[in-house]
Amino acid sequence: MSIAVVGGTGDEGFGLALRLARAGEHVVIGSRIDERGRAAAEKARGILGGGAGARVDGASNAEATAAGDVVLVTVPFAAQADIYRSIRDAVRRDAVVCDCTSPLATAVGGRAWQVLRPWNGSAAEEAKALLPPHARVVSGFQAVSGEALQELERPVEGDVLLCGADAEAKAAVGALVEKIPDLRWVDAGALTMARVIEPLTAILVSVNRRYGIRTAGIGVTGRDGWGRPPAKEA
Amino acid sequence: MSIAVVGGTGDEGFGLALRLARAGEHVVIGSRIDERGRAAAEKARGILGGGAGARVDGASNAEATAAGDVVLVTVPFAAQADIYRSIRDAVRRDAVVCDCTSPLATAVGGRAWQVLRPWNGSAAEEAKALLPPHARVVSGFQAVSGEALQELERPVEGDVLLCGADAEAKAAVGALVEKIPDLRWVDAGALTMARVIEPLTAILVSVNRRYGIRTAGIGVTGRDGWGRPPAKEA
Repeated sequence: MSIAVVGGTGDEGFGLALRLARAGEHVVIGSRIDERGRAAAEKARGILGGGAGARVDGASNAEATAAGDVVLVTVPFAAQADIYRSIRDAVRRDAVVCDCTSPLATAVGGRAWQVLRPWNGSAAEEAKALLPPHARVVSGFQAVSGEALQELERPVEGDVLLCGADAEAKAAVGALVEKIPDLRWVDAGALTMARVIEPLTAILVSVNRRYGIRTAGIGVTGRDGWGRPPAKEA
Repeated sequence: MSIAVVGGTGDEGFGLALRLARAGEHVVIGSRIDERGRAAAEKARGILGGGAGARVDGASNAEATAAGDVVLVTVPFAAQADIYRSIRDAVRRDAVVCDCTSPLATAVGGRAWQVLRPWNGSAAEEAKALLPPHARVVSGFQAVSGEALQELERPVEGDVLLCGADAEAKAAVGALVEKIPDLRWVDAGALTMARVIEPLTAILVSVNRRYGIRTAGIGVTGRDGWGRPPAKEA
């Protein structure tokens, strides 16, 4: 199995690539320019101690996507539509695509604690609209700090809220979440829930700003463990 | 000091009234019909062991508001505008008004995991628009389960995200949060942040539904303690 990280040269994508490669996964870091993808992969291998261990390759976003059983898309909202158009023909028929975009107002010169309302309701629904119908779209990771992901010696606090129509696709992304120490995943329902989950990023930016920190995260309380919900999905 | 709970006969309001009276506060439970407010107060005194201890009174919403140094407004979105109009002239000049409304789509026959977009951006901003300019409006408590509040023998897990323009008003509501065992408060910024905080309720409803539970809550990770942020507010 291979995991593509589209936009994998950014903080969030690079952090996810590091964590998943460290957990033994084969990761392909994609970038708009394939050389940058390859350079990021080399950097990742260096951080992870290269040698026999880390399996990280670099490529263009489309090449990475073509290799991915799971495709994590970690791009700024301003670039989201263009990048999805550039990968849509490369998405494998059985691939799970996890959109990690937050529609922050920075995309149009606004503040990172403000959000835009995408035409389809959420960035994840934009992704769905831009991809071929066979793509199994999941939304997640918006509230996990890219910086925290890159601090490999520390576990990552917080829960990843995943939503989407396909329970197996959510569980596949959830299995990757569980490979990152201390992170848990919570099934938050249908893809439309991304409309209320994506803006969590803005809350965390606002909280970080108030308290002068950089690592605020979201946890879900009320159950000892999360992960795959009990059978009988609604 | 007195705390008014407008809509205090509902789960959330009654739970908050119980918890705060138990912590020694004087609470006035308001209802649209004053007799129902008085009945709820009597019920609360019964639960709390009455006698010398619990100071809980009942009244109409307007009477409760007139008595309140802090006014907690815990009403369904469908009733929010009417109820604010009924209390606006009773709000004391120095009062802090904490709006706890979530604009769930149930207000118009939709589902509790769907939200509406209020005209002013959030229910809290609706409240501000409906109140006199002197009202010190805070938004909070949307993600705290009314049922959990009423289970007096158990601490309440989760964090209360407070937002609003007035730092002292947030700290006043925060001081009440701290009277409820295990609850903490987090300053999430300006009142407009309610646009992204209020919909958290919908996420929790969706999570509860998936996992067959009733007590999902939100926690904020990334700092040992929360409460009043360090000086120099932006």
